[in-house]
Amino acid sequence: MSVEEPGIEAAMRLAIEHSRQVKGSTYPNPPVGAVILDRDGQVVGAGGTAPAGGDHAEVLALRRAGRLAAGGVAVVTLEPCNHHGKTPPCVDALLEAGVATVVYAVSDPNKIAAGGADRLSEAGVQVRSGVLRDEVVAGPLREWLHKQRTGRPHVTWKYASSVDGRSAAADGSSQWISSEASRLDLHRRRAVSDAIIVGTGTVLADDPALTARLPDGSLADKQPLRIVVGKREIHSEAKVLNDDSRTMVIRTHDPAEVLQALADRTDVLLEGGPTLAGAFLRAGLIDRILVYVAPILLGGPITAVDDVGVPTIAKALRWQFDGTDRIGPDLLLSLVPNSG
Amino acid sequence: MSVEEPGIEAAMRLAIEHSRQVKGSTYPNPPVGAVILDRDGQVVGAGGTAPAGGDHAEVLALRRAGRLAAGGVAVVTLEPCNHHGKTPPCVDALLEAGVATVVYAVSDPNKIAAGGADRLSEAGVQVRSGVLRDEVVAGPLREWLHKQRTGRPHVTWKYASSVDGRSAAADGSSQWISSEASRLDLHRRRAVSDAIIVGTGTVLADDPALTARLPDGSLADKQPLRIVVGKREIHSEAKVLNDDSRTMVIRTHDPAEVLQALADRTDVLLEGGPTLAGAFLRAGLIDRILVYVAPILLGGPITAVDDVGVPTIAKALRWQFDGTDRIGPDLLLSLVPNSG
Repeated sequence: MSVEEPGIEAAMRLAIEHSRQVKGSTYPNPPVGAVILDRDGQVVGAGGTAPAGGDHAEVLALRRAGRLAAGGVAVVTLEPCNHHGKTPPCVDALLEAGVATVVYAVSDPNKIAAGGADRLSEAGVQVRSGVLRDEVVAGPLREWLHKQRTGRPHVTWKYASSVDGRSAAADGSSQWISSEASRLDLHRRRAVSDAIIVGTGTVLADDPALTARLPDGSLADKQPLRIVVGKREIHSEAKVLNDDSRTMVIRTHDPAEVLQALADRTDVLLEGGPTLAGAFLRAGLIDRILVYVAPILLGGPITAVDDVGVPTIAKALRWQFDGTDRIGPDLLLSLVPNSG
Repeated sequence: MSVEEPGIEAAMRLAIEHSRQVKGSTYPNPPVGAVILDRDGQVVGAGGTAPAGGDHAEVLALRRAGRLAAGGVAVVTLEPCNHHGKTPPCVDALLEAGVATVVYAVSDPNKIAAGGADRLSEAGVQVRSGVLRDEVVAGPLREWLHKQRTGRPHVTWKYASSVDGRSAAADGSSQWISSEASRLDLHRRRAVSDAIIVGTGTVLADDPALTARLPDGSLADKQPLRIVVGKREIHSEAKVLNDDSRTMVIRTHDPAEVLQALADRTDVLLEGGPTLAGAFLRAGLIDRILVYVAPILLGGPITAVDDVGVPTIAKALRWQFDGTDRIGPDLLLSLVPNSG
């Protein structure tokens, strides 16, 4: 290939950035990013997967590159697909454009769509895989790959707490534990999730709308499906039942049943209180934990996490930190299951 | 001054590094760093304050620079002193060496030692203050400046917890909550503290030695004074009373009385359990909180922090994060009182 190694990595980083930008809007397709380099290694086109029914990332990037793609390099976060879905195979588009080389990060684990690399090679295109694979696997494709591997949606449990693990002061008051910046961050995450899960207890106690709002307070374009889990009755005037988004009530306490009902979803956000979260944790059905930690101390009896089924230290639920971010005055801790 | 601005800042960073290296070994002197640049802006000498009775940073740096200091720049983290203590004033040494310029970060708040800048100016030396002041104030001189300002030692409260704020599993087991890496980090911090405070409850429950150990398990050269606070009797065979360091038992429950007994110390580490820490917090006598957070969930009743005197959210103890570090698999969160 005529393009230098640093150029390929930089192009993949740009492709990753494009995939991040479309994350949450591509369901049921994966959020893919693609970049086209011309023969001299210049970026001549880039794109991220359009909403379902729209173009895949490669097709968008090729269209922007036009005739400059011929003899160039396509850099894609996922192996180009080789099947007719709502759109023709990306492999056809790459061959028609005459790219000389295709570089991708992650192989497609989806048996129906896979085979793209083989067909490209057979057609004489140089193919190379694995560039920045770990970043893509842990990043924008994490939830989609999880879904392909396990058949169930990826579950992110989000909660807010004080530094000392409390969700409210001793008298139950909890307003403004986390900052405005953290609330905006959460709304941004809601907007890119396929569904939000809460328990009836949270609905009865807090009456949340569970919508995704923009900084100006208006509703985001895309609203997640709202899922209310549990057997208690909720009022018909509960905000979670309003017209701002759709809502599904699932009358069970079994996390596995909840995820079965959401089998067609990829990325769900669990915002339930300690009882529901504890049930998911004990069932091993949480794939990421996000904790918004406010720089305050509260003490007292109201903890953000209750019983997680750990009687003794040897049975501790062991995770690993995979990132920390400052969000205004707060910290956002991200944990994934311990792979060690 | 003939030296360019970036050179001065780089020299101050080097001086800060030297001050960090001697932190904890200079009591009762402040841990100062000094760098000498020659006429061309080249580093020709550097040093940090020697243990009490030894040379101040400026004198060490000047000695290393020798005749190259003449016409050069002295870059110091603290205003050079102007009084005879166990050693002659640094101002004399700077004048004798013939430096043309003195740059320092922080003015000396100690009335006895201050006046150095004025004397240098009067002698025709260019003087400039405030370079990287905030970094020095929040960094290596924090504890010493706090002592000068308040007359009492700076108190760092350290504790370890799970992500969900527990110090032990439901059955009380707590071994290995934090990692080997965090334990080494703590021992390093003990070695640079002037004293470690625990309550009799911790001594009776855990029988800690409260020594500072090196990675190979041997005792560090410098051991902090061990302080046991409370009215309960401790066994004469308790490890905290062994010969590895000195120990003071203070028979009170009042944090203010404890700090009065430590009035000649600068930097103390509070390692007490939730009862003692809660008393210090309620008294407003904690200046920094360090939390070693292990990536585990425990749930259950045993929280790392108990009652901190917060009945309702409006009375939350508000701090601010001033740093987060990965220590092996753990996170170390650092908080200081909210200045906002």
